[in-house]
Amino acid sequence: MIYFDNSATTKPYRQVLDSFIKVSEEFYGNPSSLHKIGGQAEKLLQQARSQIARLLKVKETEILFTSGGTESNNLAIKGIAAAHRQRGRHIITTSMEHASVHNAIVQLESLGYDITYVKPNSHGIISAESIQNELRDDTILVSVMHVNNEVGTIQPIEEIGMVLKSFPKAFFHVDFVQGIGKVPLNLSNSGVHLATISGHKFHGLKGTGALFVKEGVLLSPLLSGGNQEGKLRSGTENVAGMVAMAKALRMTMELREEKLNQMKSAMGKLRNGISQIKELTIHTPEKNSAPHILNFSIRGWKAETFVHALEAKNIFVSTTSACSSRKKAASRTLLEMGVPVADAESAIRVSLTYSNTEEEAEIVVKAIAETVKQLSEVIKK
Amino acid sequence: MIYFDNSATTKPYRQVLDSFIKVSEEFYGNPSSLHKIGGQAEKLLQQARSQIARLLKVKETEILFTSGGTESNNLAIKGIAAAHRQRGRHIITTSMEHASVHNAIVQLESLGYDITYVKPNSHGIISAESIQNELRDDTILVSVMHVNNEVGTIQPIEEIGMVLKSFPKAFFHVDFVQGIGKVPLNLSNSGVHLATISGHKFHGLKGTGALFVKEGVLLSPLLSGGNQEGKLRSGTENVAGMVAMAKALRMTMELREEKLNQMKSAMGKLRNGISQIKELTIHTPEKNSAPHILNFSIRGWKAETFVHALEAKNIFVSTTSACSSRKKAASRTLLEMGVPVADAESAIRVSLTYSNTEEEAEIVVKAIAETVKQLSEVIKK
Repeated sequence: MIYFDNSATTKPYRQVLDSFIKVSEEFYGNPSSLHKIGGQAEKLLQQARSQIARLLKVKETEILFTSGGTESNNLAIKGIAAAHRQRGRHIITTSMEHASVHNAIVQLESLGYDITYVKPNSHGIISAESIQNELRDDTILVSVMHVNNEVGTIQPIEEIGMVLKSFPKAFFHVDFVQGIGKVPLNLSNSGVHLATISGHKFHGLKGTGALFVKEGVLLSPLLSGGNQEGKLRSGTENVAGMVAMAKALRMTMELREEKLNQMKSAMGKLRNGISQIKELTIHTPEKNSAPHILNFSIRGWKAETFVHALEAKNIFVSTTSACSSRKKAASRTLLEMGVPVADAESAIRVSLTYSNTEEEAEIVVKAIAETVKQLSEVIKK
Repeated sequence: MIYFDNSATTKPYRQVLDSFIKVSEEFYGNPSSLHKIGGQAEKLLQQARSQIARLLKVKETEILFTSGGTESNNLAIKGIAAAHRQRGRHIITTSMEHASVHNAIVQLESLGYDITYVKPNSHGIISAESIQNELRDDTILVSVMHVNNEVGTIQPIEEIGMVLKSFPKAFFHVDFVQGIGKVPLNLSNSGVHLATISGHKFHGLKGTGALFVKEGVLLSPLLSGGNQEGKLRSGTENVAGMVAMAKALRMTMELREEKLNQMKSAMGKLRNGISQIKELTIHTPEKNSAPHILNFSIRGWKAETFVHALEAKNIFVSTTSACSSRKKAASRTLLEMGVPVADAESAIRVSLTYSNTEEEAEIVVKAIAETVKQLSEVIKK
C-alpha cells in the first residue's frame, strides 16, 4: 500500500502512541486537581507546551492547546472578531482558505462583519500588495494561510507581516496547518499574531491542536468554563494528546533534517513522471510551493473516478481537501487561480510525508500512467 | 493508593486504551476521505455513534461528537442562543451549574441575554416548580444539570421536562456529565432537547465528549469548517477517541449492573463512618443523591489542608470541582444551599467509581478520623 494522502491525515508515529498510552495510564489526573495526581498531569502538560514553544521558537505562554486545527482557526478568527468588534468590523482573508477559516469568516459575515476576499494569482499566490490594497482603518483581522492545502503554494507570510506593521490595529492570523514541519515559518518575528497547528497532520493524534497567540493579543474565548489555558480555552486538558503532539512535532522536525531531500527526490520523480503524461496538467507551480503537495488534473475524468482507479492499485490519493471531498465540488483554490472548471473538477492531490521514497513515487507514476491509459481505452470502446 | 476523585477524572480502562491504539494505528484515515482508508475510519465512527445511541436509547442521528463536556455545554447553550435569538433572549439556569454551563451563560448575559438563576433548596435540589415560576414567553432555553458535580444531588429532570411541555418554545439542556453511567436518565422521553456527556468521566479519554441533540432541534455551530457532524461541529473527527468513548460507556454500564451494590456499600461505609466523626458535617443529603459523591466539611480547616493531609496517606480526594479547585473559592453549590461560608470553605468531595470497595472506604474513614485528630492536636499545641 502506498499512502500519498498525508495532507488529509497522517499515520501516528508508534512512539507517539506509546507516549499517549503511558500518560493516559500513569498520569491520568485532572491537571486542575490540587493533589499530586493532578500536579503530575499539569507538569506533563506544561512540558508539552514548553517543548512545542521551543520547536516553534516562541514563548511557552504563547502556546494554547485546542482540539485541532478547526477549533484553532475558529478561536483565532471569532475570538478576535468578538474581542475587537468595537474597534472595527472589517476582515481581510483570501478566497482559497481552508473551510475552517472560510466558513468561520462567512459566519461572521452573516453577523454583519465586512469581509474582503483577496484572490490568488494564476500561480496560487496571494501577493502582499493585494493585501495592502485592501487594508483600512477599521480592519481588525487579516487571515492568510501559509501553505495552501490543495495546491501546496507557499504564501508570502513575512512580506504580508511587513505590510501589516504599518497597520498596528489589524491582527494577523496564519493557518499554519499544512506548513508546519514541512516549510519553516518564523512566528516570533514576522508580524504574525495568531497561528494554527493541528497534531494529526504531522503524525500526532486527531483531536489535538494548538494556537499560537502572541503575547498581549486579546481574544474572546469560544469555550467558557473552568478557565483553563489562560482563560482562553476551558475544558479538561487532553494531557496525553498534547504530550503526543509535542513528541510528534519534535520527531517530524528531526525527520525533516534527515529526510527532506528524500522527500524532495520523491516529489521530483512524481512531478517529472506526471509532466510526461500528455493527458495530465500540473497545477502546483515549481516555484513557491511546498515539497510535499502536487496537484494535477486528468481532463475528461471526474477526480473521484481516478481516486478509485488508483485505490484499486492500492495507492491512496485525494481529490480536493479531505474536508471538502465529500461535497464533490471542484477545488475552490484552482477555480480562484483561473483553472477551467473541467480541469478543477478532475484535480488530484498527492501529498507526501518524510517516510515516502523515490521508489514509491516511481510506482505511483507508473500506476497513474496505466490508469490514464485504461480509462482512455474504456472511453474508446 | 486510593483514588476517590472520580468526579474530577477517571483512569481509562485498559481495554479502552487498547481500542484507541488499534484504531489509531490501523484505521488512521480521515473519515472525510473518499478512499477506503477514509471509509474504514468513517465506518468505525458511525459504529461508535450507533453504540452510544443504543446505550442511551436515542437515535444514532441524535449523537454529535465533540471534544468534551465543556465544548458540549458551550455548543448547546451558545448554539441555541444564537440560532433562536430572534425568538427571545431569556434563559433560565440554576445557580449551581458546572463552570462550563455557568460561564457560557454569563458570556451570553454580557451580550444582552436576560438570565434567571434559580437557586437550589437547602437539600441541593432545584424544584420543577421553581423553574416553572420563571418561565416566560421569551424563554428560549432552560439549562439544569442532572447530578450536581459538587454535592451529588439529583435534579428532577423528568419533572422539569413535564413542566416544559407547556412551553414548547423553550429548549431544555441537561448537563449529564456526572450522572451518565451512575444515575439513569431517560433522554428520549423526558422533554430533554440537549444533553452533555464527557468521555473522561467514565473511564474514557480526555478530549472526547458528545452532545445529544434531539431530532429537529436547530443549533448554530461554534466550530465552522468542513461541516462534519451534520454541519454542527466541524473538524476532523477524533475517530479513535470516539470509539474509545463508546467502549468506555458500554463497559461502565455493564459494570453498573455488576457493581452498583458494591459501590453503594462503599458509600454507605463512608457516610456512616464520617457521620460518626463529630468535627465533620455531611452536606450530601441521603435522599435524591447519586451513589458516588459525598460532600462534607471539617469546620476550622481549609479544605486544601485536608486534601494534602490525606494525600500524605496516599488517599486522593478533592475540594470543590476540579475545574474550580485552583481558584480556592468556596463551593458555589454549598453557598447557594445556604451552607455557612466557613463550612463551604472547608468542604471535601469524595467521588467513587465501580472498582472502589468497602475495604477502601474503611481505610479512608480511618484516615479521615486520624487526620482530624492530628490537625486538632496541631491546633492545641
